[in-house]
Amino acid sequence: MTMDEKPSIFRYQEIAARLTSQIDAGVLQPNERLPSVRKLMRREHISLTTATRVLHVLEQNGRAYVRPRSGYFVRSRSSDAAWATLPAVTEKAFDGVPVAINDLVVDMLEKSATGDILPLGSAVLDSILIPQSQLSRILIATAKRGAAESACYTSPPGLFELRCGIARIMGDRGVLCGPDDIVITAGDSAAIECTLRIVARPGDSIVIETPTYFGILQAIETAGMKAIEITTDPLTGIDVDELERAVNSQHRIACVLLNPTLQNPLGYTMPTLHRKRVVELLARAGIPLIEDDVFHDLYAGRTQVDTLKSYDKNGMVLYCSSFSKVLTPGYRIGWCLPGRFLRKMMKDFLGRNISISRLPQQVLSEFLRKNYYEQHTARLRVLFAEQAQKVAALVKQHFPLGTRVSQPTGGFIYWIELADPVDMASLYARALSEGVSIAPGSVFYASGRCNNAFRICIGRKWTARVEQAIANLGKLCRRLSTRSRRETVSA
Amino acid sequence: MTMDEKPSIFRYQEIAARLTSQIDAGVLQPNERLPSVRKLMRREHISLTTATRVLHVLEQNGRAYVRPRSGYFVRSRSSDAAWATLPAVTEKAFDGVPVAINDLVVDMLEKSATGDILPLGSAVLDSILIPQSQLSRILIATAKRGAAESACYTSPPGLFELRCGIARIMGDRGVLCGPDDIVITAGDSAAIECTLRIVARPGDSIVIETPTYFGILQAIETAGMKAIEITTDPLTGIDVDELERAVNSQHRIACVLLNPTLQNPLGYTMPTLHRKRVVELLARAGIPLIEDDVFHDLYAGRTQVDTLKSYDKNGMVLYCSSFSKVLTPGYRIGWCLPGRFLRKMMKDFLGRNISISRLPQQVLSEFLRKNYYEQHTARLRVLFAEQAQKVAALVKQHFPLGTRVSQPTGGFIYWIELADPVDMASLYARALSEGVSIAPGSVFYASGRCNNAFRICIGRKWTARVEQAIANLGKLCRRLSTRSRRETVSA
Repeated sequence: MTMDEKPSIFRYQEIAARLTSQIDAGVLQPNERLPSVRKLMRREHISLTTATRVLHVLEQNGRAYVRPRSGYFVRSRSSDAAWATLPAVTEKAFDGVPVAINDLVVDMLEKSATGDILPLGSAVLDSILIPQSQLSRILIATAKRGAAESACYTSPPGLFELRCGIARIMGDRGVLCGPDDIVITAGDSAAIECTLRIVARPGDSIVIETPTYFGILQAIETAGMKAIEITTDPLTGIDVDELERAVNSQHRIACVLLNPTLQNPLGYTMPTLHRKRVVELLARAGIPLIEDDVFHDLYAGRTQVDTLKSYDKNGMVLYCSSFSKVLTPGYRIGWCLPGRFLRKMMKDFLGRNISISRLPQQVLSEFLRKNYYEQHTARLRVLFAEQAQKVAALVKQHFPLGTRVSQPTGGFIYWIELADPVDMASLYARALSEGVSIAPGSVFYASGRCNNAFRICIGRKWTARVEQAIANLGKLCRRLSTRSRRETVSA
Repeated sequence: MTMDEKPSIFRYQEIAARLTSQIDAGVLQPNERLPSVRKLMRREHISLTTATRVLHVLEQNGRAYVRPRSGYFVRSRSSDAAWATLPAVTEKAFDGVPVAINDLVVDMLEKSATGDILPLGSAVLDSILIPQSQLSRILIATAKRGAAESACYTSPPGLFELRCGIARIMGDRGVLCGPDDIVITAGDSAAIECTLRIVARPGDSIVIETPTYFGILQAIETAGMKAIEITTDPLTGIDVDELERAVNSQHRIACVLLNPTLQNPLGYTMPTLHRKRVVELLARAGIPLIEDDVFHDLYAGRTQVDTLKSYDKNGMVLYCSSFSKVLTPGYRIGWCLPGRFLRKMMKDFLGRNISISRLPQQVLSEFLRKNYYEQHTARLRVLFAEQAQKVAALVKQHFPLGTRVSQPTGGFIYWIELADPVDMASLYARALSEGVSIAPGSVFYASGRCNNAFRICIGRKWTARVEQAIANLGKLCRRLSTRSRRETVSA
């Protein structure tokens, strides 16, 4: 390649940009099939690699989605997909607000914990999806090798063999690291709680996506910190321009906490370009970035999704993940790559006498060593990838007109947004009395206010019971929104 | 019994008081054999029950100790036993001091974590004392019954079966409770950390024994609280009069945190009368009492020792214990009976998304159900009961003249106090370079200051290596104290 030749890296970007404008302008209609790789190759005179890249860019910028064995299709931005509207944000002062959702969440968790409830409110993997026979064999082998060893104390940063296995997983996530860069934690929540405490103090302001996982809001509330909620696009995630304005405002930001892949609850996956921009922006500003990445291996796009951590040049990204959402909810094993804050995290663990149960660490390290993890997550990806369209179809059929539902590229979390507000407390209570839990939208906002959306999770096989439950939720919403409209009219 | 007849309950107290004054006056000499039960019956014309009670009172008030198969002997209060002298406390203001030992402890933990060290500095049970074959069988059965179930999420307060088993243990400790009174925690440290946060806020003052376990000091430091250190008697524990003065002072006390049985590091066990007085005093004052009781089942006295919780009439005692010091250090399973603070604790756990690994809970609940726990702890009690005198003999033989060592009624923790101060940092470093860790006295004081004492733990079988290590420590102390005396003379 001579100096004058245009490198092909620009070619694929140029084609992708052209297709993007066609989609945005409505030339290509939602759910219309996009040109295949072969077709693009012929039409644009490009290589297989370049054509593939074009489609990946469209997927990553939220304009396309994959149907298994059918190719790429245009993503709908306004009708099927949820457009998460922040409840009445008029001005953005970026000065942080107190978080007050703990009572709401505790109430929700306590109410849903009783009886034979189909727990669509909880982002938990059903036991039937846990690889029973492989775990049994490993447990038995561990017991035979030495049950006393399993009962021995393991000091931070955790079992060496497990940290080696996690270093291999991190390689697949674009991060070349060694076991000594990793700290084992009691699940992702413990990692988040600890990283927050390491980079911020009570009273400090934390930038988050909105809506965001209530566990993150609870961690901020418990630590006595404040939240700066940045608007998100339901397909591409945090509004990077707004984030930049927040960073440049006169208010001090202690850290930014993002959940960039299969975000909980909206389901979006941040495009690569946004990721790079965010990491560079914060590195320049000297602001630590906590990356919450628990759903990574459920991402079902055609290409591997990257991590914010993979663009981290100066150790300012604190990466948190866990096995809880994809493999062993009850083991409570997560991990953290605290970057330049490693020593601070170790000191925190030693200072609080924290140590993680050895037995689950042993079982997981063996599970990774035997390469069961890749097989297992591949199976889950296929299973969940087929759910999104079924959910969308049911919502269209049973929910009030104008209801929107997210269509995440993998995972099992769906955000359902109604066109009109309903009494969410009634919806929640009635659903429970019919044997189904949901997570009301309110718990995903620092203010605890939101009356037109909720989250459902289907971390389980698709069954008639699940289908019936979603249909029933739709009917409940219809009844409640009719009533609220009647009340509005009569008022 | 008529109204005029003196009830026998006064008779045994009266005889015990008489013997106590004889001991304190030197009529009965240290290590002299006390009258046997039979002899007391004949001499005092009392029943078997009353005579037994007399000796129990003497044991509990620190005047007598038991030699297996030999009877009761007079405890030495000044020569063999450690007399824990607080480093230069001149006045007692009861206004709380900041705790600053975290750096010291982290430094100690990091330094001792390397190489083939005999970890006499750590209060950890050696793996050889963990019941290997019983745990193996249970693990295998658990794996066969369903490894997927073990991987399932367990929400607070923890596995029901385990809480039932713990309720039975609590019965043996004088507390009649049900499974719903118990919250499973990630070990004792997590229970302490959580109870502190429930009853106190940053800046609040916590009353503790001094010296006290560094984990408690770390928890207070991490929570940003202050410590009010109350003097302790090396045989009977916290000075209840001084505690009463603190309670009646103008300073607010957020809570009192005691480790009344086999206290870490001094090894004392509070007498029953003191226990009752403390619980009643604090109940009257409306001050919550955290009872740290991790060594309970290692207490090797003739009678069951009681708990502070067993005298708790209004739910003001938050009881914390764990399996870590007696059975499975690496499982990280502890428990808490938060009394009237139960709801607050549940809210804290749900609010911080805390859940405890299910697999270790399953194994432990099975271990309890099969009644292995009582057998196992009985074996440990016998093993450790024989250590105290061996330690005392070695200290007498190898340490500088005037060195005192605690003689706890069970457990594996010893406090060694030198007659003259030495450079504790040198002692610590030299011991490490000779392959032995110790816990320097400094980490047991809020101020981080203490240069004449250290703690050793022998949670292992007595071997030539252990014996050699203690002898070497003695020689190191001799060398260092000779040097410091020389330096004093030449200065």
